[in-house]
Amino acid sequence: MTHTTDHEADDHFHDECGVFGIYGRSDAASFTTLGLHALQHRGQEAAGIVTYDNGQFHIERHVGLIGDTFTKPSVIERLPGDRSIGHTRYATTGGSSLRNIQPLFAELDGGGLTVAHNGNITNALTVQRELQRKGAIFSSTSDTETILHLVAMSEKKDILSKFQEAIVQLEGAFSLVALTAKKLIGCRDPLGIRPLVLGDLDGSWILASETCALDIMGARFVRDIKPGELVCITDKGIDSYFPFKAQEEQKSRFCIFEYVYFARPDSNIEGRNVYDVRKQIGVELANEEPCNADIVVPVPDSGVPAAIGFAQGANIPFELGIIRNHYVGRTFIQPTDAIRHMGVKLKHNANPFVLEGKSVVLVDDSIVRGTTSKKIVQMVREAGAREVHMRIASPPTMSPCFYGVDTPEKSKLLASRMTVEEMAEFIRVDSLSFLSIDGLYRAVGEVNRNADVPQFCDACFTNQYPTRLLDQDGPDNVRKLSLLANNN
Amino acid sequence: MTHTTDHEADDHFHDECGVFGIYGRSDAASFTTLGLHALQHRGQEAAGIVTYDNGQFHIERHVGLIGDTFTKPSVIERLPGDRSIGHTRYATTGGSSLRNIQPLFAELDGGGLTVAHNGNITNALTVQRELQRKGAIFSSTSDTETILHLVAMSEKKDILSKFQEAIVQLEGAFSLVALTAKKLIGCRDPLGIRPLVLGDLDGSWILASETCALDIMGARFVRDIKPGELVCITDKGIDSYFPFKAQEEQKSRFCIFEYVYFARPDSNIEGRNVYDVRKQIGVELANEEPCNADIVVPVPDSGVPAAIGFAQGANIPFELGIIRNHYVGRTFIQPTDAIRHMGVKLKHNANPFVLEGKSVVLVDDSIVRGTTSKKIVQMVREAGAREVHMRIASPPTMSPCFYGVDTPEKSKLLASRMTVEEMAEFIRVDSLSFLSIDGLYRAVGEVNRNADVPQFCDACFTNQYPTRLLDQDGPDNVRKLSLLANNN
Amino acid sequence: MTHTTDHEADDHFHDECGVFGIYGRSDAASFTTLGLHALQHRGQEAAGIVTYDNGQFHIERHVGLIGDTFTKPSVIERLPGDRSIGHTRYATTGGSSLRNIQPLFAELDGGGLTVAHNGNITNALTVQRELQRKGAIFSSTSDTETILHLVAMSEKKDILSKFQEAIVQLEGAFSLVALTAKKLIGCRDPLGIRPLVLGDLDGSWILASETCALDIMGARFVRDIKPGELVCITDKGIDSYFPFKAQEEQKSRFCIFEYVYFARPDSNIEGRNVYDVRKQIGVELANEEPCNADIVVPVPDSGVPAAIGFAQGANIPFELGIIRNHYVGRTFIQPTDAIRHMGVKLKHNANPFVLEGKSVVLVDDSIVRGTTSKKIVQMVREAGAREVHMRIASPPTMSPCFYGVDTPEKSKLLASRMTVEEMAEFIRVDSLSFLSIDGLYRAVGEVNRNADVPQFCDACFTNQYPTRLLDQDGPDNVRKLSLLANNN
Amino acid sequence: MTHTTDHEADDHFHDECGVFGIYGRSDAASFTTLGLHALQHRGQEAAGIVTYDNGQFHIERHVGLIGDTFTKPSVIERLPGDRSIGHTRYATTGGSSLRNIQPLFAELDGGGLTVAHNGNITNALTVQRELQRKGAIFSSTSDTETILHLVAMSEKKDILSKFQEAIVQLEGAFSLVALTAKKLIGCRDPLGIRPLVLGDLDGSWILASETCALDIMGARFVRDIKPGELVCITDKGIDSYFPFKAQEEQKSRFCIFEYVYFARPDSNIEGRNVYDVRKQIGVELANEEPCNADIVVPVPDSGVPAAIGFAQGANIPFELGIIRNHYVGRTFIQPTDAIRHMGVKLKHNANPFVLEGKSVVLVDDSIVRGTTSKKIVQMVREAGAREVHMRIASPPTMSPCFYGVDTPEKSKLLASRMTVEEMAEFIRVDSLSFLSIDGLYRAVGEVNRNADVPQFCDACFTNQYPTRLLDQDGPDNVRKLSLLANNN
Repeated sequence: MTHTTDHEADDHFHDECGVFGIYGRSDAASFTTLGLHALQHRGQEAAGIVTYDNGQFHIERHVGLIGDTFTKPSVIERLPGDRSIGHTRYATTGGSSLRNIQPLFAELDGGGLTVAHNGNITNALTVQRELQRKGAIFSSTSDTETILHLVAMSEKKDILSKFQEAIVQLEGAFSLVALTAKKLIGCRDPLGIRPLVLGDLDGSWILASETCALDIMGARFVRDIKPGELVCITDKGIDSYFPFKAQEEQKSRFCIFEYVYFARPDSNIEGRNVYDVRKQIGVELANEEPCNADIVVPVPDSGVPAAIGFAQGANIPFELGIIRNHYVGRTFIQPTDAIRHMGVKLKHNANPFVLEGKSVVLVDDSIVRGTTSKKIVQMVREAGAREVHMRIASPPTMSPCFYGVDTPEKSKLLASRMTVEEMAEFIRVDSLSFLSIDGLYRAVGEVNRNADVPQFCDACFTNQYPTRLLDQDGPDNVRKLSLLANNN
Repeated sequence: MTHTTDHEADDHFHDECGVFGIYGRSDAASFTTLGLHALQHRGQEAAGIVTYDNGQFHIERHVGLIGDTFTKPSVIERLPGDRSIGHTRYATTGGSSLRNIQPLFAELDGGGLTVAHNGNITNALTVQRELQRKGAIFSSTSDTETILHLVAMSEKKDILSKFQEAIVQLEGAFSLVALTAKKLIGCRDPLGIRPLVLGDLDGSWILASETCALDIMGARFVRDIKPGELVCITDKGIDSYFPFKAQEEQKSRFCIFEYVYFARPDSNIEGRNVYDVRKQIGVELANEEPCNADIVVPVPDSGVPAAIGFAQGANIPFELGIIRNHYVGRTFIQPTDAIRHMGVKLKHNANPFVLEGKSVVLVDDSIVRGTTSKKIVQMVREAGAREVHMRIASPPTMSPCFYGVDTPEKSKLLASRMTVEEMAEFIRVDSLSFLSIDGLYRAVGEVNRNADVPQFCDACFTNQYPTRLLDQDGPDNVRKLSLLANNN
Repeated sequence: MTHTTDHEADDHFHDECGVFGIYGRSDAASFTTLGLHALQHRGQEAAGIVTYDNGQFHIERHVGLIGDTFTKPSVIERLPGDRSIGHTRYATTGGSSLRNIQPLFAELDGGGLTVAHNGNITNALTVQRELQRKGAIFSSTSDTETILHLVAMSEKKDILSKFQEAIVQLEGAFSLVALTAKKLIGCRDPLGIRPLVLGDLDGSWILASETCALDIMGARFVRDIKPGELVCITDKGIDSYFPFKAQEEQKSRFCIFEYVYFARPDSNIEGRNVYDVRKQIGVELANEEPCNADIVVPVPDSGVPAAIGFAQGANIPFELGIIRNHYVGRTFIQPTDAIRHMGVKLKHNANPFVLEGKSVVLVDDSIVRGTTSKKIVQMVREAGAREVHMRIASPPTMSPCFYGVDTPEKSKLLASRMTVEEMAEFIRVDSLSFLSIDGLYRAVGEVNRNADVPQFCDACFTNQYPTRLLDQDGPDNVRKLSLLANNN
Repeated sequence: MTHTTDHEADDHFHDECGVFGIYGRSDAASFTTLGLHALQHRGQEAAGIVTYDNGQFHIERHVGLIGDTFTKPSVIERLPGDRSIGHTRYATTGGSSLRNIQPLFAELDGGGLTVAHNGNITNALTVQRELQRKGAIFSSTSDTETILHLVAMSEKKDILSKFQEAIVQLEGAFSLVALTAKKLIGCRDPLGIRPLVLGDLDGSWILASETCALDIMGARFVRDIKPGELVCITDKGIDSYFPFKAQEEQKSRFCIFEYVYFARPDSNIEGRNVYDVRKQIGVELANEEPCNADIVVPVPDSGVPAAIGFAQGANIPFELGIIRNHYVGRTFIQPTDAIRHMGVKLKHNANPFVLEGKSVVLVDDSIVRGTTSKKIVQMVREAGAREVHMRIASPPTMSPCFYGVDTPEKSKLLASRMTVEEMAEFIRVDSLSFLSIDGLYRAVGEVNRNADVPQFCDACFTNQYPTRLLDQDGPDNVRKLSLLANNN
C-alpha cells in the first residue's frame, strides 16, 4: 500500500533518507532491517536492502514501512548473506516511483556495486548530462545513479580507486554506504553535512545515519565518520581515506537542523545528545523570550523536549494540553471537500479541561508554511485558552535546503515573506518569538555563531549555502529530470 | 493488509471496540469515518460502517486502520445516506475473521436492522444455543449477532418493542448503537459498564463511545447516555426509555480502567476529564508511595500523564528518558528467532545521556504479564541508571475482564501469582509500588471505595464482578464458538 | 481479480452452476478441486469448497477460476478431511457478492450443514418471506439459503428427516449436494431438470453435475441420480429415498438445452453422449434445412460438433474459416468508446484465405440476442464470402429460463420479437434456418416430441414451463432480493 | 497475478514474443493493446506499452494477459499519445522479472529511445561484456538492452545513423520496433528469421509481428518488412534502408516452424496463409504416411488444421475425439503430489463414445519431450480405441532453437535420442510417422528443400543454423547473465 504523504498536514522540513550497512555478520539483512526501523523517522515512504552472498547480490525494494514490508519471512529469506546495505527514504530527488528506491545496483566490468545515499548531490544533473553525452544510460532519476556511472566510466584499475575518482567529482551533501562483493564502503562529503556513524556489533562493523540504529541491536558506538572521510571495510579490517584533497582545509559544516528536528532525540551526533540539545534550546528560549503564562504546552510530538526545557527554564508548569492521534499516520485522506473545509481535528485535539481560562505558551520546533500553526492556535483558543503565546525552538526558516531535505520553495516559507509581527498576526497569537541564531549555537554548545566560517550549515535560517549549487543556479535549472513520465 | 497484533509486545489490557452513530446529516459516512478515527485507540484491527439511504442499507467492512481503508473515495462513495453507524474493533469475542467485523446486518420481517456493540454479552452462548434450538442460523461468531436473532424472533409488533424485548434478555456489558430505516438507537447495559455519549452537530444527533469523537468534528457534548437507558432518535427527535425494569434500583458500575488506560486523555467521561484523572493518579501515587529519586521518567506513551502528576506531586524533574519508535505500529514481526532472542529495542530506546548515573522513578499505567516492564527496566539499567524505582498508576491487575476487554487468562497476570515483592524481583527494580484501590477512587474524585456497593466496576483489581458470568461459569463454558474452522 | 462477464459479447444462455461431492477419500478437497475444474464450463465466476474433518468444517470461497484460486497450496491446506462438497458458479440468483458464493454453511442445533446447489428454486422468495416472519435471518441473497433455514426450522428429529421435510417444500429445478459431519447427501428435483450423477473412485462415492468430472480423476460412472431421488452416503454405504410423494407419477423433464450447449461434449447425460447428440443435430439440420454451399464453417467453439455433423450429412467440406482468440477469456474490456464502436475483432477473426469467393454455411448452436451473429456474418462477408447461410443447431429461443440458467428477459430474445425472415434480415444472411423442435427430439433419440407430456423441459423454445413459477407470477415478483445494497 | 507456466504440461516449442507499433493515430495505446491482444499467442506472461506525447514518454509494463492488464481504464489513461510501441512476451532470454519486460527505454543524449524485440541476439552477451568494459551499466538481463547501449555509445550524429550503426553489430534473429519522439522504426535481421509486417489504418502506419494484429482493427496489410530492411516512419512518411551491407547477397531464411505452430492460422506470412499451409501439411502427411484407420482425431487445438487436411487427403472421417478444457489456462497447479502422480486429465479428456472400438489416427503438430503425447495416447487407449496411430505434422525436432524460441536443451528432445521406432514404443502407439522435411517444404509451396541454401531456417529439424552462435559457442557460454539474484 502506498503511504500517501500529506505535506500540507505535516508542516515540517523532512530529512529524506537514512542509510545502514553491516559487514561480517550472518543474517545481515535482519540487522539491516532493525537498523532501518530505528532510522524510520528519516524516511517512511520506501526502503531497500541489498545483500551479497556466495557470488550473487540480492535486492529487495518495497514501498511502505520497514515493519510492514521487510519483516515478512518471505522477504528476509530472499536476502541471504553476511554483508548488507540498506536505505529508507522520504521522497528523494527524482520522484517516488519504484525505480528510484535505493540502494541502486550496477553490474560493472569488475563486479557488482550497490550504493545507498543520504543527502543531495548538487551537481548531479550537470554530471549526468556529461555522462549521457558519453553514452551512459540512466535507469532511474535518482542522483545516486550518477555515482554508479562515474564509477563505471572510471579508467582506474581497482574498485576503490574508481570509487574515489567518482566521489571527488560530486558536490553537495552525501553520506553514502556502498557494497561490493568484498567491501563495505562508507563516506561523507567534505563538509560532513549529513551524519554517518561507525559502530561495532561483537566484531562486525556497522555504518549508520544515527546512533539510535546501533542502540536498537545493542551495538557499540565507535565514532562519527569524519567529514570528507571514506572508510573501506573488508575481511581484513577497516581502512580510512581522505580523497577530497582540494577541500582538505575546509571546516565541517554539519546540518544544525538535524538537532532541531530531524534526528531522533536518543541519538548522539558529533558528540552531542539530541534530546539534551533540544532541552537546552528550550532553556535558551525561555531566557531570550520569557513569557508570563500559566502553563507550557508542547505541540506534540516534536515540540516536547524544548517545552520541557522551557518549562524548567521559566519555572512554569508543563502540561499536555494537546493530544495527538497516533493512528493518523501519514495516510489519512480527508474524505470529502465538505469535510476538508470544516477544519476537522484529524491529528491533534486540544483538551479544554487543561486549557480553559489559561494563558498558554505553545512550544513548537519550527514554522514552515504556518498552516498547521494557525490551526493549532485556533484549536487552543476554541478550547478556552485566555492568551496564546508561541515560542519557536529555532530561528525563522527563510530559505530552502538543497542538501537532501524536503522543503517548500522559498515563496511558501512563511518567514521569507513576513516579519515576525506579521507572522504573529497570521497565526493569531498574542505573542510570537523565535530562538536567535546565536541562541541556537549556544544550545549546541558553541559560544556563538562564527559569522565568517559558521560551525554548521544553517542555510535554511541564514541563506548562506556552504557549497556551490550548480544544478540550481546554472542554465540547466529548469531541465526536466526525465523524458519518462511514469515507470511501473 | 492485516495488522497482526503482537499481544506479548504490547503488554496491556485492551478495550475492544468503539462505536459511533449519526442521524440526519448528509454525508453521514464521512462523519462516521471521522468519529471512528478519533476512537481508533479503542480498536485498530478492523472497522465497519453501515448507512441507510433511499430504501437500502449500504455496508463496508475492512481490516486495517480507518485512515487507510475508509478514507478511499471509492469506499465512501459506496456509503450514501444521512444516517449511519460504525464500529472499530480490536479482537472481539469470536475471532478475527471478516464475518465478525461489525456492524452486523439483518433483514427482518419488518425491515433492515444493523447493530454495533462495545462490550461483551456474558450470556451470549447460552442464549445462542437456545435460539439455535428454535431454528436460528448464526452467520458469525460475534456475540452481537445474538441481539439480531432475539429481535428477529420477538413477537412484539414494532421494531422498538422487539429491540427492548431483546436487550432485556442480555447480561454483561454493552453499549450499543443500532440503525433501522427510520431510527438510530443507542443503549447501555443497566450498570453502564462501557461508555456512550450523546452529541449534537448543528442539529444532527450523534452517539459515540467517547467525547473525543465529538471534538474531532466540532460537535457539542450533550450528555452521557445513562446506565440502562435506551434512546431512540428519529426525524421527530430523541426519546428515552429504561427497559431494564428489574434492575432499576441497581447502581452504575462504570469501568474504572477506562480512566486508567482505555479512554483517550482528552475525553470527558461521566463528568471527569481523563487526562486530569491520570495526573491526579500521579499525584496520589507520589503521596502514597514517595521516592527520593533524581528524575521521573514515564514509560511512553501511556505513562506520561501520571508521570507529570507524579513529578509535580513529588517535585522531581520530569524527563523523557525513554524514546518510543512511533513507526513500530502493531505490525513489526521480529525477523528471525536469533534476533528475537537478542532482546532488540523495536519499540523503545533508553537515552543514556538522560539516565546515566541517575536514580530513576519509572511511571507506568499498569503491569499485566510483566514482560514489557522487565525489558524496560533492563534497558534503563543498561543505559546507566544507578537505581530504578517503578510506580504503577493503578492497583495490581489480578483478574481477567469479561466485559469486552482483551485480558490474558488469570494465570498469566503477574499480580495473580506474585506478591509485590516478588514482582519487584521479577522485573528487577529497586522498589515497586502500586496505587492503592482507595487511591484510585480518590483520583477519580470519590472519598474512597464503597466496599458494599462499589461506585465502579473494578473487577480486574478486586475480583468482584458486578454481574453473573453465565457462559463462563455454566456447563457450556468449554463449548466451541463454532463448528466452522475458518471462513473466507 | 474479478472476472467481469461481458454478456453482450458472449451471446449465449449460460448454465449457472456445477456441483461436486466426495465421501471417504483422504485429501477430499483436492478431488473436489479437480471435479470443479472439469465443471468450470458450468460457471467461471467463483467457487467454494467445504470439507469436514475431526469435528470441524472448513470452508474456502474465492472469486475466479478454480485453477487460479484453489490450486494454491495455502488454500488446499486449509481444507483437510476425507469428505467434501464444492460448487462453481456463473451468476446465480442473488448477485455476485462474496456472501453468495456457495456452498453455504449453517450451524444447526444438531450440528453443521453445508449445501451447494445447481438450478433455481422458483418459490424461494415466497418461502423466504414466510421464514422471515418466523424470525429467520438470511445472510445471503442466494436461494440456496432457503434450504438451510427450512432444515433449521424443521421439528423433525434427525437431520435426514429434516432435510427431506425441507426439500419437499421447494419448487423448481435443483440438483443439490449437502454435507454433514457424517453424511454426504445428493438430490434432484422431481422433474430432474438439472443433471446429477453418481460415481465411484476406488470405493469412494462421488456426486457430480456431469460425467466429465468423474473422467478427470479416473472415477467410474455408476448411474444418474433419478429425478426426485435423494441419496444419503455414510460410512455404511449409500441409501436411496424418494421424498417427493405427491409428484411420484410425474415424468422426468430433463433440460434439453444441456445437450444443445451447456454440457461438455465428452459428458454422458441420461444415457446420451453430448458430442454425439450435437453431431446428430448437425445431421438432422442438414436433412431439414439443406444448403448448396461450398464450405461448412462452424462458429467456434460451440458450433463445431454440429458443423461436423452438418458437413458429413450434407457432404460439404468442413473448414475452420473463423479463428477464435483463446486469450480473450471473459475479461477483455474494450479500452475506449471510440474503439468499441469500431467493431474490433477481439474474440473471432475470419480467415479470408478460406472464405474469399465462397458460398458459406455458418453453423452455430443458438441465437439469443443476435448481436454476435450479426457481427460474425459481417466479418465473414468482409473476408470475401460470396454467400452467407446460417444454420442454427436448435429451435428459436423464445422464452427465458427460470431453472438456473442466465437468460435475457423475453423482450431481448431476438426470436421473441421477429420472424425467421426478419431475423435473417437483421443478421444479414442470405438464408437462415433453425432446427425444428421435433428435429431436436430426434437428435436426442426420440421419435418426436410428445406434445402432451414432453420428454424434456424445452420451455425456452416452447414457453411450456413444467412447474409453477410462484415468485415470478405472484404478487411478490417485483420484490427486491435484499435491503442491503452491497456487502463487502 | 503471475501466470506460472508449466512447460512440462504444454509440450511445445514456444515463440517468445510479439511486437507492435503504430504512428500517427490518436489513442495509439488502445490500438497497441488490440494489436498485442491479437498477438497474445506469441507470449502470455507479460506485456509492455510505451507511448510518446508532448515531450514525454509514457510506459506501462505488467505481468499477465493483455486483456486482464492493459484494458483497465487507469492503465490506458496513463498512456496518452499518437505513437506507440508494444511487446508481449513468453519468457525471453534473461528471466522473468519485471525489469525484463519490454519495451525497454533509455534516455540518450539526443532524446528518448524505446525498443521492443522479437527474436534472440546470438552475440548479445559478447557485446554486453565489451560495453561493460567501456562503462555501460545494464539495468536488465534482456538482450534487447544491448541495442540501447550500442545506440547510446555510437558517435554518429543523428539517431537514425546511431541506430543503424548499432544493429549491424548484432547477430541472430531480430524483428524490432523502436520509437523516438519523432520516429517509429522497424527492422528485421538480414535473414528475416522472425516475421514483421507493415500495415495501414486509414493513413496511420502500423508494424506488427503478424497480419492477425492488423485484422483485429480492420487495418490493411501493406507488405512484409524485408529481411535486412529498416523502415523509418515519421510525419513525412516512410523511408526504407538496408544497413546490413555485407550480408546483402544472403538469402532469406524465414523460420519454417512459424507455419507449423507459432503463427496464428488466420495470419498470412511471406505470402502464405498459415491455416492453408497447415491443411496442406495434413494432405502431404496423408500422402506420405497413409493409415487405414476408422477416424482422424486431432490433438486439440494445434493439431486441428493438419487433421482436417489429413482427413480430406485420406478420406477418413474427422472426429473431435479429444476435448480440451479451455479453462486450464496456463496456471493450474496440480494440488498435491499424490494427485500429480494419478495422471489426472486437467487439460484434455478423451471421449469414449467416439473412440471405443475404433482404429484412430491422432494428428499433432510436433513432439518435443514426448511426455504429453504419451499421456494422450494412454488416455485414448483407456477410452477404448482399438488401434492408435500417430501422425506428426512436421519432421522430428532434433535441435534447440537460438533465435527467440523457448526449446528444451537437446538432450530433452525425444527425437534427438531415439529413432522413430523407439519413439513409437515410448509413446506406445501402433504406428508413428513424421512428415518429411521435403514434404514440409512442399506444403509451404516449394518443390523441395534446397540443401545448399535452404529457403527457410529449419535448424530445429536439421541442425543447420543459418548464423554464427557466438555466445553459445564461445568461451563465455557458461557466463551468468547477472550477478543480481532477484530484483523486485
